[in-house]
Amino acid sequence: MKVGVLGGGQLGRMMALAGYPLGLRFRFFDPSPDAAAGHMAEFVSGSYDDLDAVERFAAGLDAITYEFENVPAETARYLAERLPVHPTPAALEVAQDRLIEKTFFRKLGFQTPAFAPVDSRNDLDAALREIGLPAVLKTRRDGYDGKGQAVLQHVAEIDTAWEQLGGRPLILEAFVPFERELSIVAARGLDGSFRAYPLVENEHRAGILGRTIAPAPGLTPELQSTAEACVSAAMMELGYAGVMTIEFFEHQGRLLVNEMAPRVHNSGHWTIEGAETSQFENHLRAVLGLPLGSTAVRGYSTMLNLIGATPEWSTMLGIDGLHLHLYGKDPRPGRKLGHVTICATDPTALEERLKAFVESLHRS
Amino acid sequence: MKVGVLGGGQLGRMMALAGYPLGLRFRFFDPSPDAAAGHMAEFVSGSYDDLDAVERFAAGLDAITYEFENVPAETARYLAERLPVHPTPAALEVAQDRLIEKTFFRKLGFQTPAFAPVDSRNDLDAALREIGLPAVLKTRRDGYDGKGQAVLQHVAEIDTAWEQLGGRPLILEAFVPFERELSIVAARGLDGSFRAYPLVENEHRAGILGRTIAPAPGLTPELQSTAEACVSAAMMELGYAGVMTIEFFEHQGRLLVNEMAPRVHNSGHWTIEGAETSQFENHLRAVLGLPLGSTAVRGYSTMLNLIGATPEWSTMLGIDGLHLHLYGKDPRPGRKLGHVTICATDPTALEERLKAFVESLHRS
Repeated sequence: MKVGVLGGGQLGRMMALAGYPLGLRFRFFDPSPDAAAGHMAEFVSGSYDDLDAVERFAAGLDAITYEFENVPAETARYLAERLPVHPTPAALEVAQDRLIEKTFFRKLGFQTPAFAPVDSRNDLDAALREIGLPAVLKTRRDGYDGKGQAVLQHVAEIDTAWEQLGGRPLILEAFVPFERELSIVAARGLDGSFRAYPLVENEHRAGILGRTIAPAPGLTPELQSTAEACVSAAMMELGYAGVMTIEFFEHQGRLLVNEMAPRVHNSGHWTIEGAETSQFENHLRAVLGLPLGSTAVRGYSTMLNLIGATPEWSTMLGIDGLHLHLYGKDPRPGRKLGHVTICATDPTALEERLKAFVESLHRS
Repeated sequence: MKVGVLGGGQLGRMMALAGYPLGLRFRFFDPSPDAAAGHMAEFVSGSYDDLDAVERFAAGLDAITYEFENVPAETARYLAERLPVHPTPAALEVAQDRLIEKTFFRKLGFQTPAFAPVDSRNDLDAALREIGLPAVLKTRRDGYDGKGQAVLQHVAEIDTAWEQLGGRPLILEAFVPFERELSIVAARGLDGSFRAYPLVENEHRAGILGRTIAPAPGLTPELQSTAEACVSAAMMELGYAGVMTIEFFEHQGRLLVNEMAPRVHNSGHWTIEGAETSQFENHLRAVLGLPLGSTAVRGYSTMLNLIGATPEWSTMLGIDGLHLHLYGKDPRPGRKLGHVTICATDPTALEERLKAFVESLHRS
């Protein structure tokens, strides 16, 4: 079976590494000719709206999925008329627009930070009166890794934020003084079967995910079941097949939906070593109509992104239980070049290995 | 770094899957244009003695290794004059000839079944007088998976065996009524560092490995340290870097060396899920001069080869803890098409999952 993947970044690369052992073959599509998945599978480079290139990509495929949520929904719909495409393109439309996304989760009965649409300076003033400060002004579309947003702490910051972001469809969101950010990765099969990984705790640095602790420390069954109910309800509403990720703020014991990703997710990378079946394998199983694999956890894991530069290779590999994942990308400031997942059978051993890793960073 | 691999079968395929996360790239060389590693990396097809093809393969590589022990040692030596080639070609020469191999281990002080060289019918009669029946007559070179050998139980079988195998350099070995076959997989780094996986128990069917149980049930520290001493001594004697496998017969509490493989091995496939670092990753770390990864075991594993045909895909994937590995090969009787490794945190759970797998085989 040959699977086509829209997007050829590191998520696609890790999807192929999980799919080859299932006997699958892959073809990737990406606007960048240097995409990370390009040198280990068939590869078509083109613009997402170049239907000739998209047709070349689709020829002879058995199924199509994506590893990038900003694939134009029209391209996904065009392909879905010809081939099985999962997750449903409708999920892209929800995930690509913060206003539609938050409205979607509210309608399903889940909590989100307070929000209001902002299409004009008048809207912004009205929204600020309703929501108050601090708040976050964000573009509705195309934001990622902290880009396209401005935190408003004081009235004096409003004009600058408007100059920076105004003119595009925006959303104002209440700034939630959350205790921590949690996320859940879950898979839904074509037959409606459902399996979720435990909630994990995420730490960001400069808007980019820095570290994921799996499972989230102090995770209660109540939090886990709330998160599972949320992702399951979203999947059912959309008629979804594949892996979905939802990021939450934990605040005063409640989970507020921050955003969803209709795909495998950076906060699920720990599952490669830390769970019985990885998010990548479960995504492929889900979109191809195969039984989902066990999401049971194996020990304790911490995932750390390697951003901008990679530490000295051989020093890192000297730490037991450290699993290195480089994406084959050239270094550039702020770029995710890889990640490491450090695993251990007990939290104390994990803490020691993490300490050794941090020390190796300072030495190198 | 780009690594060249002589041989492009499933061992090479799994090596590339382990190496991509380290940021490595691969180029394979194999006489068969359909080799299993061919569609996921650069690939050169040619005969091992076609030096033009071998030169094309080697151009621009940083290091070379092999996944097949019958690569002509001359080809490996030719390449070793130009590039780092590990394991040392000397290991191929030992592994390719059963007489040299058994003599090598005897000289190191380890036990083997009694053996004698057989180059003529007179030699065979002399060897039979010395060793007695039952015995096994084998070709010295090119035997694998039970091919090129004949078991002699009765005097009446001697003529037939000679007709079948005579004319090539042979070896007669005492037939050891062993309790079980065990094997050890270990890695030695360029710096002499050494790490071994636990001994595993192997069951063969019709000369082909059928099942590996890891760790071997009832494994004692004495057996493990004897096996580690043996593989470590062999590696030191050869100045070896990479993974080596030694198969033993266990007989009356002793380990007798049966054979060595200067490469990753079918009986080490369980390490992909069942150990902290897989044999494939440790082989790459070893030949590239990187620190070796932990060989600590994660739970209990049983590996079963999928030979000749593959069971119904989706039925297998319905079993928790079952990890499927298909090699992308066309079905053919007796051909290894893939394997499954079933893992669990305790032996009882493993037994239940194995039972479920065997039942799914009967249903499909």
